[in-house]
Amino acid sequence: MTHASIGILGGTGPQGQGLARHLARGGHPVVLGSRDEGKAVETAAALGVDGITGGDNATAADAEVVIVAVPYDGHAALLESVRDRLVGKIVIDCVNPLGFDKQGPYVLDVPAGSAAQEAQQLLPQSRVLAAFHHLSAPVLNNPDTADLDQDVLVLGEDRDDVAQVIMIAEALPGVRGVFAGRLRNAGQVEGLTANIIAINRRHKTHAGIKIIGLPSDVLPSDVLPSDRGTKA
Amino acid sequence: MTHASIGILGGTGPQGQGLARHLARGGHPVVLGSRDEGKAVETAAALGVDGITGGDNATAADAEVVIVAVPYDGHAALLESVRDRLVGKIVIDCVNPLGFDKQGPYVLDVPAGSAAQEAQQLLPQSRVLAAFHHLSAPVLNNPDTADLDQDVLVLGEDRDDVAQVIMIAEALPGVRGVFAGRLRNAGQVEGLTANIIAINRRHKTHAGIKIIGLPSDVLPSDVLPSDRGTKA
Repeated sequence: MTHASIGILGGTGPQGQGLARHLARGGHPVVLGSRDEGKAVETAAALGVDGITGGDNATAADAEVVIVAVPYDGHAALLESVRDRLVGKIVIDCVNPLGFDKQGPYVLDVPAGSAAQEAQQLLPQSRVLAAFHHLSAPVLNNPDTADLDQDVLVLGEDRDDVAQVIMIAEALPGVRGVFAGRLRNAGQVEGLTANIIAINRRHKTHAGIKIIGLPSDVLPSDVLPSDRGTKA
Repeated sequence: MTHASIGILGGTGPQGQGLARHLARGGHPVVLGSRDEGKAVETAAALGVDGITGGDNATAADAEVVIVAVPYDGHAALLESVRDRLVGKIVIDCVNPLGFDKQGPYVLDVPAGSAAQEAQQLLPQSRVLAAFHHLSAPVLNNPDTADLDQDVLVLGEDRDDVAQVIMIAEALPGVRGVFAGRLRNAGQVEGLTANIIAINRRHKTHAGIKIIGLPSDVLPSDVLPSDRGTKA
């Protein structure tokens, strides 16, 4: 199959750069988006990976699939600004609404329940999914990372869309994509990032998660043709 | 070291029985508690594992360490009823505040932020920790289960208490206990059970989680003597 072009809103941040690096290596044309087009162009070039270009966020929003990788405090305004460009598309929200104080990370109160549900409310004509919350930006951004060795939890309402995002996740080296529920269960997956940060601080590491107990054949191909078009 | 006696409030439920089975095999005297003393005595005997006795919840609350394994809707009332018996003790909350409808599981709104924080509010003179949320009751309850092969996330405020609960968790076969943050970050760990149920339904399995990226020596001994007495 062909690899969808992927735009990354807020793509010049550490998470966006890391995703861009590995998605491009995995065969996806990637457009790094930023409020500052010049910075996006520079950052894309500095990554030194073929297939990554830079542009403003509107340009990134014109890709076939769009990842939202902005800090939570800019999330709503950015999505509203590119709403029309996202109509009919898969939008993958990977925003973690976290705060930090002297005791460490904590989960912000999001009236919609989660950043992903907020995105779906702001983008009623898009198909919002949630994924990529727990990947360590420093690990993603290390050019020597050849095996992330972890699972990416994918949340969404439609089986076909979930299967497509699982396939995109699996363009990252050593990643297995795992369906982890409907969008209304995204809040705790976003919030779990606070626990992973607590683990990282205690053990001075870059932790991630794996699901155990899945059949060994859980791969994108587990979505049978007969499932297509049914709801998750 | 000696193995602390462990009382399990609501211990006749599937999660309580499963924990009792493996904690007793791991060397801990266990008291299964229930509102119905006769049922607790019968259930303890039926488990057929040495070291498990049954009693009312007050009797279970008299153990050295107490696990709370009741359904969320009975959580607050039960804790209030045994508050005095829990003064000064480690109380391990493993309650998942979940609802279910035709679309599956979802997270209930808990004003305190999580069941564990609610427990700490109701038991101000106890040391509440959170753990054991993601273990599958059917797997725990299968007498043939010899290797759970997963991590138990442990949340709490005090390093010594966390270390003690990690050691209790590691009495279960194939379990590694992992500190996963302060109690204020328990809500998303409880809620993640909804995602695990979604995974189970999709794949007809009993899933669990593992943390990747930890140093290979992450065991209770990672709590150095110099850490003792400091806060988490």
